[in-house]
Amino acid sequence: MKIIPGAEFKLEREVEVGTPAHQEAVQRIIETVRKDGDEALRRYALEFDKVKVGELRVSAEELEAAYAQVDDAFLSALRGAAANIRAFHEKQKRTSWFDLQPSGTMLGQVVRPLRRVGLYVPGGKAAYPSSVLMNAIPAMVAGVPEVVMVTPPATAGAGASGGGIDPHILVAAAEAGVKEIYRVGGAQAVAALAYGTESIRPVDKIVGPGNIYVALAKRAVYGVVDIDSIAGPSEIVVLADETANPVYAAADLLSQAEHDELASAMLVTASRTLAERVQAEVQRQLETLPRKGIAAKSVADYGAILLVDSLDEAVALVNRLAPEHLELLVAEPHALLGRIENAGAIFLGTYSSEPVGDYFAGPNHVLPTNGTARFSSPLNVDDFVKKSSVISYSKQDLLANGEAIMTLARHEGLEAHARAIQVRLEQEGGDRDNG
Amino acid sequence: MKIIPGAEFKLEREVEVGTPAHQEAVQRIIETVRKDGDEALRRYALEFDKVKVGELRVSAEELEAAYAQVDDAFLSALRGAAANIRAFHEKQKRTSWFDLQPSGTMLGQVVRPLRRVGLYVPGGKAAYPSSVLMNAIPAMVAGVPEVVMVTPPATAGAGASGGGIDPHILVAAAEAGVKEIYRVGGAQAVAALAYGTESIRPVDKIVGPGNIYVALAKRAVYGVVDIDSIAGPSEIVVLADETANPVYAAADLLSQAEHDELASAMLVTASRTLAERVQAEVQRQLETLPRKGIAAKSVADYGAILLVDSLDEAVALVNRLAPEHLELLVAEPHALLGRIENAGAIFLGTYSSEPVGDYFAGPNHVLPTNGTARFSSPLNVDDFVKKSSVISYSKQDLLANGEAIMTLARHEGLEAHARAIQVRLEQEGGDRDNG
Repeated sequence: MKIIPGAEFKLEREVEVGTPAHQEAVQRIIETVRKDGDEALRRYALEFDKVKVGELRVSAEELEAAYAQVDDAFLSALRGAAANIRAFHEKQKRTSWFDLQPSGTMLGQVVRPLRRVGLYVPGGKAAYPSSVLMNAIPAMVAGVPEVVMVTPPATAGAGASGGGIDPHILVAAAEAGVKEIYRVGGAQAVAALAYGTESIRPVDKIVGPGNIYVALAKRAVYGVVDIDSIAGPSEIVVLADETANPVYAAADLLSQAEHDELASAMLVTASRTLAERVQAEVQRQLETLPRKGIAAKSVADYGAILLVDSLDEAVALVNRLAPEHLELLVAEPHALLGRIENAGAIFLGTYSSEPVGDYFAGPNHVLPTNGTARFSSPLNVDDFVKKSSVISYSKQDLLANGEAIMTLARHEGLEAHARAIQVRLEQEGGDRDNG
Repeated sequence: MKIIPGAEFKLEREVEVGTPAHQEAVQRIIETVRKDGDEALRRYALEFDKVKVGELRVSAEELEAAYAQVDDAFLSALRGAAANIRAFHEKQKRTSWFDLQPSGTMLGQVVRPLRRVGLYVPGGKAAYPSSVLMNAIPAMVAGVPEVVMVTPPATAGAGASGGGIDPHILVAAAEAGVKEIYRVGGAQAVAALAYGTESIRPVDKIVGPGNIYVALAKRAVYGVVDIDSIAGPSEIVVLADETANPVYAAADLLSQAEHDELASAMLVTASRTLAERVQAEVQRQLETLPRKGIAAKSVADYGAILLVDSLDEAVALVNRLAPEHLELLVAEPHALLGRIENAGAIFLGTYSSEPVGDYFAGPNHVLPTNGTARFSSPLNVDDFVKKSSVISYSKQDLLANGEAIMTLARHEGLEAHARAIQVRLEQEGGDRDNG
């Protein structure tokens, strides 16, 4: 991990959009699913997942049986996490409100859950139970009556017939309250959720991570359904002062770096001593990591120790970086909080190691990446509701304000707008229709 | 306006994406602005707007002078509208919150305004002061410190030298509190807002309506900055029973139809008598409308009177349509509100004519179109804030839950995540590091 002056750091952001070949493949898959429905899903399972799929929907028995295949420590930890995630997201809920005015006018905002949401869960090694909880629970807390999960069936091989789904994923879904699960993955799963097939009714929104095909398919169906933001590689910035424990700082940096060769882990500090210690610690801890290859490449390509002159400079740099995860390993982390403008999740102090948030504390781990914390938020209950404005205007207010409304409409050349008011003033206005 | 059975109505939705030629033109403009900055903006003003632009920024004097060019009735109506819009949106504001737990852990959500927002305002006949208020005021109420407006300079001709901006637009901006205004329009304005030029610093989000070039440019820069949803043609559904006044219903339908030949106005009713009366009224009122050509084409192509068998069927149909605007012209509109799942804005009863909401009552007139009310909301204060999660975990909680966190991390094959916890348990845990 190189130590470089913060002032020399150049911020470069790119957005992954896939090649034209990717895009064409995804378009073709979407069109085929729209045309051929379930049959297309089965054909693609055979082609991509090497699995002959019978029933697309996972049965209640299969879901029940999954519990026998996970160990107690896992189940207990998962339940603890689920309870915390539920408790945190409950606090995000909002109610409809109405403003009742003395004139009789009532203005309001109705907040309602979406009706049906689809959750994409990757298969294979990227099948993360924690991610199932983080995506499904906010939808459940929002009150979405139908949360549907799709996930690719396991490839056949090594004595297994294939078509199954990781029992840990099934248990996480069940713990989150998801009962409707289909064994279908890739762009074809996204197409099925957006347009529906014989077996899968269409949804209003699709969330959850996926590979480039899944991401491009989500982008393509956006507008027909809503989608969550498309996540880039994971990032952490650790802002630390001389009081920080270099062993902890290094371990936290590496916990991001192991995700992905494109992941970015950066230390920002005004302490050269700390910088050098963390640099040495990263090297030392790297050696024994099972995912050493990935983490080392991430650290080499996207990692950095940014040495700054002051805490002020550090804060300004962090706000420019707008990191997905930000740890404040400083003497008084809470005092700094007010100065952090841009970050997905902020971890305060020695005991708030980033994995605490990834897995357990309660706030969501689906966070804005690639600098989008400047304008985006962690996945939350608001992402699973929609609002409607309500206008119940009184006769008194219409008579009082009708002329003003007509003035504005006529200025904009929209005479029919003005007349919708005028016909009412004429019939309801008494004296006023002569005014 | 044809009367057709509701059951036979087939819902078709398409999303406007422009031709490849549009997309290439927009890409070229964006790249040119990134490369040539202000000079590109001036070149495009000459090419597209036929105007030689000097200072890009509108001066304080020009803004001040605009007030002398608008009449008192307009200014007074505009101020009334602005006050109502501000009052309604103030009620949408949310505060940061923290949950302080007995263990010492503190979890929270920080809500902050975006730093800098760009508002696109179309030029010419589509320059609507009401739209300036509806887009700028929620950003102001959210606390965005820098709200910037861009709008194309007027084309030279008929004795005018060009380059000016409609004084009504300038006054609306000033009343909303916008002080930073640039005379630049089209895809080039969107590019300038997203990437910045010598004169225009980049923003975090771009909102506001525009033509196909503006819409495509917004789509292209999404990810670099946030954008609002891209609006389709305007729509209204009037759900009416036999108590409705057919003159009002027809006038309200026409107020949508006059917007655009692609606009859609539909009546849903179980009363054949009302259906026939509204049909006749639409025809009668159409005759004297200045925008008769547009409204007549909209009514012919996208208008319909949908005759249903019952109020239940009407409600189900409305929820399927998910209209941008919904009027409930029924005996007991408030009693129906709870059954309306999907609609951008809901207008209750005789006096809540849609233009009341377009101009004056307070709720936003930027609403989800094309069925997206199933998952989208009116423009609101939430669109101009971002949230960050805050995790301040206590030593007590880390010691109590560290094992569970490591279990979940190791199950997912993320050993470095587990070690970030483990190093802390080892150093801080006392007895526990032997556990």
